Amino acid sequence: MKTEQPYLLTPGPINTTLSVKQAMLQDWGSWDGDFRAMTARLCQQLVALIDGEDSHVCVPMQGSGTFAVEATLATLVPKDGKLLILMNGAYGQRMGKIMNYLGRDYVALDKGDYEPPRGEEVEAILAADPAITHVALVHCETSSGILNPVEEIAEAVARQGRRLIIDSMSAFGAVAISAKTVQFDALISSANKCFEGVPGFGFSLVRQSALDASKGNAHSLSLDLLDQWQYLAKTGQWRYTPPTHVVAAFLQALKEHAAEGGIVGRHARYQRNQQRLVAGMRRMGFETLLSDVWLSPIIITFFSPGHSNFDFQAFYDRMKARGFIIYPGKLTEADSFRLGCIGQLHDVQIDAVLTAVAAVLDELQIPNGAPIHALNAAATA
Amino acid sequence: MKTEQPYLLTPGPINTTLSVKQAMLQDWGSWDGDFRAMTARLCQQLVALIDGEDSHVCVPMQGSGTFAVEATLATLVPKDGKLLILMNGAYGQRMGKIMNYLGRDYVALDKGDYEPPRGEEVEAILAADPAITHVALVHCETSSGILNPVEEIAEAVARQGRRLIIDSMSAFGAVAISAKTVQFDALISSANKCFEGVPGFGFSLVRQSALDASKGNAHSLSLDLLDQWQYLAKTGQWRYTPPTHVVAAFLQALKEHAAEGGIVGRHARYQRNQQRLVAGMRRMGFETLLSDVWLSPIIITFFSPGHSNFDFQAFYDRMKARGFIIYPGKLTEADSFRLGCIGQLHDVQIDAVLTAVAAVLDELQIPNGAPIHALNAAATA
Repeated sequence: MKTEQPYLLTPGPINTTLSVKQAMLQDWGSWDGDFRAMTARLCQQLVALIDGEDSHVCVPMQGSGTFAVEATLATLVPKDGKLLILMNGAYGQRMGKIMNYLGRDYVALDKGDYEPPRGEEVEAILAADPAITHVALVHCETSSGILNPVEEIAEAVARQGRRLIIDSMSAFGAVAISAKTVQFDALISSANKCFEGVPGFGFSLVRQSALDASKGNAHSLSLDLLDQWQYLAKTGQWRYTPPTHVVAAFLQALKEHAAEGGIVGRHARYQRNQQRLVAGMRRMGFETLLSDVWLSPIIITFFSPGHSNFDFQAFYDRMKARGFIIYPGKLTEADSFRLGCIGQLHDVQIDAVLTAVAAVLDELQIPNGAPIHALNAAATA
Repeated sequence: MKTEQPYLLTPGPINTTLSVKQAMLQDWGSWDGDFRAMTARLCQQLVALIDGEDSHVCVPMQGSGTFAVEATLATLVPKDGKLLILMNGAYGQRMGKIMNYLGRDYVALDKGDYEPPRGEEVEAILAADPAITHVALVHCETSSGILNPVEEIAEAVARQGRRLIIDSMSAFGAVAISAKTVQFDALISSANKCFEGVPGFGFSLVRQSALDASKGNAHSLSLDLLDQWQYLAKTGQWRYTPPTHVVAAFLQALKEHAAEGGIVGRHARYQRNQQRLVAGMRRMGFETLLSDVWLSPIIITFFSPGHSNFDFQAFYDRMKARGFIIYPGKLTEADSFRLGCIGQLHDVQIDAVLTAVAAVLDELQIPNGAPIHALNAAATA
């Protein structure tokens, strides 16, 4: 099956609907009242999705998600603060890099490629080190695809009276989280993941009281989340030129997110994608890195087949020729690749992915036991 | 004349063609070879526009233009360097703010609201202060609309053996500048000004040798121009998620820019817009802030009529009702407003602007001498 435009089986940018893209067929003046109303609507809707109306504000930030993460860490962790970073992949490591640039104190609980940080061990570290003021967690670490146990970690952090910052870049919009039941000072995400907008900005949902107390912390004018928010609160405008078309696309994406049943509905489709994909791949003999309990509905890491004919680039190119862009693996210990479940993917696309994988294995002459051929035969029958 | 979508008489975001916006009707995988080829093409074309193939490289940066300015200053001005900022408006002042965040030494030559900095005075300051390593200039300062004398300043800076950084946000693409005749270490611009793309990223055209020598300077991971460039050079990819759709729109905008005759052709149209607009406004009795020699083809500041019936918001709302979004003034000393000449504006739109201004003056019962009514009568006859 060859499609006009390739399907993106990646953690983002992902496939968006045509209607989301068509929302970009207009130009807006960023200073004008019409656009200010769009920004206000965007912020209100995002805050409502975490039940944060009484506690949190939305601060959009131009750039990629990393810009929003850096802005949030720099604005919320004071110069004399100390951050505990819960690492199990590239995005936790990136927070460490940010802290190195900031020159602020941090420690890491590094769980390696894919082990989850647990509430108990976090609590023990906090109890032993009263200097730690903040804890940072990656909600879904797409390096492995693990969905980290945010609730038990938030409880541990709250019990120890510290502040939690959640990088929920690739989870928010499809994984429910309520500020009323999970205590966090900031939840960071972006336009082009589970909300199925196009890339160009991120946002931080920040506890108002934490933001109010952050004066003088930021290291950068562009990435000063407090200054960005104060200007927005005063004028209704983004402080510097916003990606107007991307914002318009995001508003359409939010409408379609709501129409699908909001976070619950979006989660159900992604979960179904994941289960269908994992089941199909397992029938062909592929193994997932993670056991089922840790699999996210966002992206899945599969071990590469051990056969000598398997070569990632050849696999990639042949999948692309069939209309699917897959994602390389990021494990240090084993060869792997990743398949995303998010974006405009439905049963028909997932089935087509499985058909394509089977066909490519055949082309590469990788016999992987009867199950592969059985599926391949069934799918092409 | 009421248009479907308002015309933006602003310094950006501006009106883009439908074909530029239609280039966004597809999704790209940022990791994929197709998108990497797009990024390579974009960088090559921008470097060629400054004749920089032998000396400069293009480093795109996610976010608004300010992000690219901050990234460039932070990466090129070392921690023990000293910057001379040539200020005559908001964008020069903003560079001062950036330097305050960076905690690096700088002095300003502040010319107030609209006086141009001159080569002689810059040279005198540099001669008197050998600690100054870099000079920063805003090419077109849209606060007043002045086109600053970049050539004479570049000569002064070169004669004194210092390094020049040019914020050409609102000029590059419509005002020619060659790295072969003007010495500069960086020229910074953005997607959504004279190139008529949509907003979402900026870029810095940096002297390779200056970039190579910048290790350890940057204060921020996201805004580290050297790290961004090294990753791009190694992988062909942006370091973090690029605004893929905005990049696609920009490539289409570059194609249309070339078809219009490149910088020369674009400049000719904007210059014509400016002259037509200024002549028409003067016929109605309006006065420009600047004398003709300093007027840019980008945006023009007009003094507000002195009549007591004039109110900016009423003027704005009535112009908007007629399909034109105008821009407020930024002078500290006098009431003013601005009209932009850039984006998809041609004779017919400029004439329509003039007709609308005349009609709004009539509605507001602002008699401004015979010329107003003569033009109004002519335009609506």
